[in-house]
Amino acid sequence: MKTIDLNCDLGESFGPYKIGNDEKIIPYVSSINIACGFHAGDPAVMERTVRLAKENGVSIGAHPGFQDLSHFGRRNLPVTSKEAYQLVLYQLGALHAFCRAYDVPLHHVKPHGALYNVAAENKKIAGAIADAIKHFDDSLILYGLSGSLLIQAGKEAGLQTASEVFADRTYVASGALSPRSLDGAVIHDSEKVLSQVRQMISHGKVTTLEGKEISIKADTICLHGDNKDALLLGKQIYSMLKEEGFSVQSVARWKQ
Amino acid sequence: MKTIDLNCDLGESFGPYKIGNDEKIIPYVSSINIACGFHAGDPAVMERTVRLAKENGVSIGAHPGFQDLSHFGRRNLPVTSKEAYQLVLYQLGALHAFCRAYDVPLHHVKPHGALYNVAAENKKIAGAIADAIKHFDDSLILYGLSGSLLIQAGKEAGLQTASEVFADRTYVASGALSPRSLDGAVIHDSEKVLSQVRQMISHGKVTTLEGKEISIKADTICLHGDNKDALLLGKQIYSMLKEEGFSVQSVARWKQ
Amino acid sequence: MKTIDLNCDLGESFGPYKIGNDEKIIPYVSSINIACGFHAGDPAVMERTVRLAKENGVSIGAHPGFQDLSHFGRRNLPVTSKEAYQLVLYQLGALHAFCRAYDVPLHHVKPHGALYNVAAENKKIAGAIADAIKHFDDSLILYGLSGSLLIQAGKEAGLQTASEVFADRTYVASGALSPRSLDGAVIHDSEKVLSQVRQMISHGKVTTLEGKEISIKADTICLHGDNKDALLLGKQIYSMLKEEGFSVQSVARWKQ
Amino acid sequence: MKTIDLNCDLGESFGPYKIGNDEKIIPYVSSINIACGFHAGDPAVMERTVRLAKENGVSIGAHPGFQDLSHFGRRNLPVTSKEAYQLVLYQLGALHAFCRAYDVPLHHVKPHGALYNVAAENKKIAGAIADAIKHFDDSLILYGLSGSLLIQAGKEAGLQTASEVFADRTYVASGALSPRSLDGAVIHDSEKVLSQVRQMISHGKVTTLEGKEISIKADTICLHGDNKDALLLGKQIYSMLKEEGFSVQSVARWKQ
Repeated sequence: MKTIDLNCDLGESFGPYKIGNDEKIIPYVSSINIACGFHAGDPAVMERTVRLAKENGVSIGAHPGFQDLSHFGRRNLPVTSKEAYQLVLYQLGALHAFCRAYDVPLHHVKPHGALYNVAAENKKIAGAIADAIKHFDDSLILYGLSGSLLIQAGKEAGLQTASEVFADRTYVASGALSPRSLDGAVIHDSEKVLSQVRQMISHGKVTTLEGKEISIKADTICLHGDNKDALLLGKQIYSMLKEEGFSVQSVARWKQ
Repeated sequence: MKTIDLNCDLGESFGPYKIGNDEKIIPYVSSINIACGFHAGDPAVMERTVRLAKENGVSIGAHPGFQDLSHFGRRNLPVTSKEAYQLVLYQLGALHAFCRAYDVPLHHVKPHGALYNVAAENKKIAGAIADAIKHFDDSLILYGLSGSLLIQAGKEAGLQTASEVFADRTYVASGALSPRSLDGAVIHDSEKVLSQVRQMISHGKVTTLEGKEISIKADTICLHGDNKDALLLGKQIYSMLKEEGFSVQSVARWKQ
Repeated sequence: MKTIDLNCDLGESFGPYKIGNDEKIIPYVSSINIACGFHAGDPAVMERTVRLAKENGVSIGAHPGFQDLSHFGRRNLPVTSKEAYQLVLYQLGALHAFCRAYDVPLHHVKPHGALYNVAAENKKIAGAIADAIKHFDDSLILYGLSGSLLIQAGKEAGLQTASEVFADRTYVASGALSPRSLDGAVIHDSEKVLSQVRQMISHGKVTTLEGKEISIKADTICLHGDNKDALLLGKQIYSMLKEEGFSVQSVARWKQ
Repeated sequence: MKTIDLNCDLGESFGPYKIGNDEKIIPYVSSINIACGFHAGDPAVMERTVRLAKENGVSIGAHPGFQDLSHFGRRNLPVTSKEAYQLVLYQLGALHAFCRAYDVPLHHVKPHGALYNVAAENKKIAGAIADAIKHFDDSLILYGLSGSLLIQAGKEAGLQTASEVFADRTYVASGALSPRSLDGAVIHDSEKVLSQVRQMISHGKVTTLEGKEISIKADTICLHGDNKDALLLGKQIYSMLKEEGFSVQSVARWKQ
């Protein structure tokens, strides 16, 4: 049976502030990435989200980001690779403690926001992140942008990796995501979104913004649960995958 | 051979801000408590301090505190027992990640400052801290004020505990520390400090502020490295213990 | 013509996190209290909210609170009166800068959450807050709980004060708000809310939870805009006041 | 009589963390720049430092920086010009409140660290900072790097400016500071430091790292009080200036 992983960022609330619809999107994904208190989340939210994941039987990943709550980890903060190593290690450990307390495994690590983006293109930062994961637990899976330097760094470190693709974002010929500043960077037509997903996971291809078909590795698809439209799209992708005979399940770990 | 543990709070710097003389005090202690980023410390300081501990062969403890950098964790913040559980778990995990990366064991947990004090007297908070440790790793040793509710909570949770005594603080008849507001709460005469230490570890007794001799369990003695005087006193205690034939070594763990 | 002030807490969002429905509630109030970055708000939110206030012609107040974003300033943090003075002064000044930049006056100060509550009952903290306001600008109006020590401290400092009442909270015989732990602390029936408002502003009386009529000074009524129900209730109070011939306008300052 | 302003960054401690030797350096300067709680400082430190300035009769400047305590405002955070405007306005106002409470004027504004550096070279950020000052109080003096875009932006906004020079840093032919990565960026020989100061303030010239003499405007010289050597150098510069017949006094404001 064909399998695919659907992942979503959860646990992004902070104290009295709520972001996301965690309970509503979680039935449609197989793995989640939990904020670790630097760009979002706090110890209470983390505990709640680990419990929610356990109840829903989804795989838990750490979602470390820059320490930048006021900008949700979306600014590319100038950090050295040593600092990147330290901030990933710290957040990884913090989330892992909640996993241990709830007796559920930590399954993967996916950097968040600007850290994810910089790691896709900066070899040193990518290597530092891979090292932090490897030094903490070399059986964890590294989720990263398909075709990026982060995936490459994970492989070089001997980590299992999962190549992430985006359902509603277009790609350019290099295999990178189209910059959001470009017209057509985001796909708004849900039929086109579903069609791109099919193309990616069934054929390992994607048609770029320029109209060229390129190869793309798709181990996991990122869904969003921020608003009504995102939720609806997530459900549509999930339903289509079921109809096409896919089993939605998280990436199997080589080692445990 | 008689053994005693000397412990000290380390890793209390933050970014450009320095507190303590970590390199100078560490040769004279057998176990250290490392701040975890809430009341002091940051990921860079934590990594540096774990490395320093490894180089010096001392046992590493987590030193979780209230999230209150501006007051160094010394204010008794109003937290629920659930929040106490969460903040200990988070910090425990964060420090543990650095231990794993450096392949050294996490040995114990000692709450910091106001969290230490409230846990000594508040059964619910004490229980929450003990639970957090137990759920994370039930082989960790809980360091707490000798005779306090925290030690009791640790025992009830099935944790190994280490009863901490203070060399330069006086005690009242109940076995509690003399409140700092009282005259005589702090012992300034180093001869008296050494004499109290001898009495505590050799005979399991301490003479209270009121002049009464009471029993006290002394598994570990807290040293300080903040300033010249504290450093000097620490060295004097260390030397006296060696002369008296004690082996200064950290508390042996029952389980590993 | 009879006048009454309706006030509301605004500008409580933070970075990507949104709280409140500022644009929806502002047409129904005459003065607003803007969070100053300690318990909520940030420089961007503050600028936006000052602009919104100017566009809507409402009077601007500073809404200083404890530095406790994760708990929205609702925890009673242990501060000295000196620290209370400093944190009010700091936040007051920060908001004032945005008022100056938009060429609108700062009109009043209303402490937020736990700081408001502690100031109602703690003479030293109340005095410190009054001093901070006085030393910054003695023409500012101090908003405080009607009948509280904060109002008294404001008067003793020579400040103009505005006694605040709550539309949907009941009172006890002492004139204090019924503790939220009591049944009946919050009035859920909107007819009863309107009736209590009428009683308070037309007759200067309120019927306590125990059924006794006591005197109460009502210069300003606190509305909320957090959710649909709060918004609806706010509009109902506003409409009722207009129908009863009240002019909804902010408290006139004695000095400018 | 010839006059010169000596300025120094003060109030850079935070809670229990101490940086600087404020009491020791203040007798040798005529104006100080006080951290405003974003990159360093807190409300308690700000009050203490304003009082210290008043007692010593030095002019007070706001020293706004990036909100980056863990890196002391030294990282170039990616901010929009709108955000730069807001963070300067916020910090300016906060410090001004303490000045008002102590009945001393706010005299100038000098951006800190990375904000100072980026403002020297980025026209939009420079303009945003100048606007924030102008909108708050157009009689304040803008301190900026001599010859920089920040000075130019201040002039264009109609602000009085003070061109700052560095005693122990070398310059390159463009008039910019030699990058710290270059050999010779910092002058370690105190005789050479004194000689450069003389050259700058008496003749309006400086000999660049390449050995070329260029013109430089020197209204104020930056001293440091971080450590023994910096303190000693500050005193030497002060003494030399007195001997040469200079009156050390802060820049006179055109408007008050």
